[in-house]
Amino acid sequence: MIQTKIRVHKKLPKLNDPVFVEGLPGVGNVGRIAAGYLAEQLGAKEFAELFSPHFLPFVLLHQSSAVHVLKNEFYYWKGGKKGQRDLIILIGDSQSIDPVGHYEIVETVLDFIEKLGVKEIITIAGLNVGKLEKNPKVIGAVSEPGVMKDYKGYGIDFDAGSRIGTIVGASGLFIGLGRYRGMRGICLLGETSGFPIIPDPKSAEAVLKALTKILGVNIDMSKLGDKVKEMENFMKKIQGVQQRAIQQFLAQQTGKPKESKEDLKYIG
Amino acid sequence: MIQTKIRVHKKLPKLNDPVFVEGLPGVGNVGRIAAGYLAEQLGAKEFAELFSPHFLPFVLLHQSSAVHVLKNEFYYWKGGKKGQRDLIILIGDSQSIDPVGHYEIVETVLDFIEKLGVKEIITIAGLNVGKLEKNPKVIGAVSEPGVMKDYKGYGIDFDAGSRIGTIVGASGLFIGLGRYRGMRGICLLGETSGFPIIPDPKSAEAVLKALTKILGVNIDMSKLGDKVKEMENFMKKIQGVQQRAIQQFLAQQTGKPKESKEDLKYIG
Amino acid sequence: MIQTKIRVHKKLPKLNDPVFVEGLPGVGNVGRIAAGYLAEQLGAKEFAELFSPHFLPFVLLHQSSAVHVLKNEFYYWKGGKKGQRDLIILIGDSQSIDPVGHYEIVETVLDFIEKLGVKEIITIAGLNVGKLEKNPKVIGAVSEPGVMKDYKGYGIDFDAGSRIGTIVGASGLFIGLGRYRGMRGICLLGETSGFPIIPDPKSAEAVLKALTKILGVNIDMSKLGDKVKEMENFMKKIQGVQQRAIQQFLAQQTGKPKESKEDLKYIG
Amino acid sequence: MIQTKIRVHKKLPKLNDPVFVEGLPGVGNVGRIAAGYLAEQLGAKEFAELFSPHFLPFVLLHQSSAVHVLKNEFYYWKGGKKGQRDLIILIGDSQSIDPVGHYEIVETVLDFIEKLGVKEIITIAGLNVGKLEKNPKVIGAVSEPGVMKDYKGYGIDFDAGSRIGTIVGASGLFIGLGRYRGMRGICLLGETSGFPIIPDPKSAEAVLKALTKILGVNIDMSKLGDKVKEMENFMKKIQGVQQRAIQQFLAQQTGKPKESKEDLKYIG
Repeated sequence: MIQTKIRVHKKLPKLNDPVFVEGLPGVGNVGRIAAGYLAEQLGAKEFAELFSPHFLPFVLLHQSSAVHVLKNEFYYWKGGKKGQRDLIILIGDSQSIDPVGHYEIVETVLDFIEKLGVKEIITIAGLNVGKLEKNPKVIGAVSEPGVMKDYKGYGIDFDAGSRIGTIVGASGLFIGLGRYRGMRGICLLGETSGFPIIPDPKSAEAVLKALTKILGVNIDMSKLGDKVKEMENFMKKIQGVQQRAIQQFLAQQTGKPKESKEDLKYIG
Repeated sequence: MIQTKIRVHKKLPKLNDPVFVEGLPGVGNVGRIAAGYLAEQLGAKEFAELFSPHFLPFVLLHQSSAVHVLKNEFYYWKGGKKGQRDLIILIGDSQSIDPVGHYEIVETVLDFIEKLGVKEIITIAGLNVGKLEKNPKVIGAVSEPGVMKDYKGYGIDFDAGSRIGTIVGASGLFIGLGRYRGMRGICLLGETSGFPIIPDPKSAEAVLKALTKILGVNIDMSKLGDKVKEMENFMKKIQGVQQRAIQQFLAQQTGKPKESKEDLKYIG
Repeated sequence: MIQTKIRVHKKLPKLNDPVFVEGLPGVGNVGRIAAGYLAEQLGAKEFAELFSPHFLPFVLLHQSSAVHVLKNEFYYWKGGKKGQRDLIILIGDSQSIDPVGHYEIVETVLDFIEKLGVKEIITIAGLNVGKLEKNPKVIGAVSEPGVMKDYKGYGIDFDAGSRIGTIVGASGLFIGLGRYRGMRGICLLGETSGFPIIPDPKSAEAVLKALTKILGVNIDMSKLGDKVKEMENFMKKIQGVQQRAIQQFLAQQTGKPKESKEDLKYIG
Repeated sequence: MIQTKIRVHKKLPKLNDPVFVEGLPGVGNVGRIAAGYLAEQLGAKEFAELFSPHFLPFVLLHQSSAVHVLKNEFYYWKGGKKGQRDLIILIGDSQSIDPVGHYEIVETVLDFIEKLGVKEIITIAGLNVGKLEKNPKVIGAVSEPGVMKDYKGYGIDFDAGSRIGTIVGASGLFIGLGRYRGMRGICLLGETSGFPIIPDPKSAEAVLKALTKILGVNIDMSKLGDKVKEMENFMKKIQGVQQRAIQQFLAQQTGKPKESKEDLKYIG
């Protein structure tokens, strides 16, 4: 049985009561942008990769002509200053493409980080508000009502329950299922316009402001715009090829050539 | 391999020849309403939860801003008076979203309740009759022809076989598969209009009348209307977000923003 | 992991070099009719049942108000006269509803019959020729070219390879995969109009004539018409509820009531 | 749990540092044609077969009336001359029909060839450029940037990364996942018009020219045209029946007869 697997590069880092921060692709790519930028600015180090049969079965091509299997990556960072905690950051190319896979990936990661001593989870996602907000708010959803007080004073709106109904995918399941392993957690939701294909740097910045306060770290925000443009190209590529891959997959099944107006090429 | 799991809170209750009563969401939510109201009125105690990768991969948000993973819950109640039996009641947020999951969940539950000594199963479901009935009937389907005589005298219509063809999902499989473990069972079907999204309290009340007679318990029916309204909001929320979740899931796959006329928000 | 399982009633029959005969629902229900009628006329005895999570997750309701889980059944018959061999006959309500399930069910059955000493397999299916044939032919497909000569002289047309391309489902996989266990096999294909919902007794009769010659048995064909009508009602019911079940399943997913013009009722 | 399995005919060949060459059906069937022709011209010997529940659940009918389960086949060839290496060649009827299956099949094959000592992988695929090229180019994608220099001087275009985004299916996953087992690899992509159902011999020839140079072998190209026509008929048959199988599968689910304008027959 092929399953989601985590491959550790050399050996596991020794971390002291680490906080787990997750940011995977989703609405507005808010989580992916915020967590990726945090890891880069902190100089966090990659120590493990996650592969899953629930990702789309293709490889991406880098400029270098080298291929890249869809995966998620674990980074760690050791907090040195007062009030800083060690961090494990999870970012990556994709979430599961089927419902069962979401559960499998989240439980596989929870098993892994539980062994690394994680007792606190912070996930990042976008909240579709249907339009671009000038000053997007950060909305919080917690693993248990009692956890809310731990995150007071960071400008997080805890009035979410009355307005929104659900958190789809990994960001919700991590805090929802982590709770049963004694992990406290919060999901930080940046308001965004809800177009998955368009990364929303403003929303990511709003979330990063709250997140860095929570974590007691200082990062230079000035490069976020450039970084988002870079990511935007990469994420567009993933999502573009994902669409074409699905079309091609369907074409293979039905024997019909794709009816694409795009002149982008793909391989089978 | 990620699988359906049952998590016991502390320890298993000691029960004497318990009857298993199941009421999960379905047509008219008749089962969910009836079993939920019974558990509440009896003051039954939750002792275990069931989680499944075959539920939709999202969490619900409570008013409290705390998240809630989709799950099913087991309650128990110890009958004290003459003619009363101990009960195990299964209610919950969802049934499986795929065919294989229905079998997996039902077999997992049967393994569990078999160890708890269950030899009798009563499941509750709605029967779509295409219109709202003023006086909805309760129709019975049994695990074996010989079982029918045990449920005579409760106003149950056993003429179902000639009119209806099938019972979809957990309510049917529990009695159909339980039989091979030596469990006798009945499915109580309340006539309803068949719109899954509209809970039908009248149908649930009709089933509850038969059910309480069978179980030899007395419950106050006066709060059922209020309770149903409360449930209605909750179930609407689940089903509404379920629809939007599916739309969002599809949108993520295709890269297209959803075309929803609703102004309800969702998160990804 | 929930899997296809075979449940033996009491103990396995002791059989001498048995032939395995398979007839499950499919095009024109030719296999189901022919194998079912053969089992009944020979007075074969049921000795095991097969349950699978790859069947639709519902139960059927008998006239008796008792429910019936979708399953396949194994019968055996001991040949007494000269030239007769012992038989294992597989019939049932359904084939797998997904591709992987076909492989799982066939391999599970092959494991089972291999232990029972089977070295020869005869499967029965319908061949869609697009119109009703007055005198439907029986076409043969074999596990290996060398096997063809064993079935000469029974009026089987072995010119199939030049006209037809594929055998879908269990009938094809049994002989295709059985070969790798040292089992010789033939698939008898009765020409039929190809409407799955309409059982084709003429085609089944043609196949039965060839099959009984191969097996050296004599059966009374006069009741086939009546039997087919009986089966027709039953199969119609299964297929009808299957369609409605799928509609209901979709309705539950989308929250929309079904748009059925039928006034048949169903349960959820 | 039914899984992808590899069946070795007698015993494994003893090979010296073998190169693994893969060519399965895909865009333009470039890989299937090139690898199949190479195996035939070299006189490579089949030594193992791969079966998978992720192939479509049907058998093909040969002219001989014998059935053929969809499978992949492993061939080996021992290089005798200077500069020649031993080869393992994988060809076959089909790739996985679902995303998870692609991962399962590729990992199963990687496990197998790792034990046979493979450290270098060459996969072959078609690159859809939307039109027929008179002189199709061969584009290369590698497992790691450092690998590119090993394949310089064979006329391979390594400018792919800037133009194309993704390699779908086995050809991409073999080099993308093989890398984590210490295997170096290249995917050779022949430019083609992108109609999956039309085999493209020109594109296959272009790839074969580069491939034979890499492998240091000489093969007679003059029979490629005839061979492709032969394969074309076979692949058309597979893809044609695949389409009809899907139609029939859907028809069985919905109870509707297929609406095919073709007069080809099929079996169920």
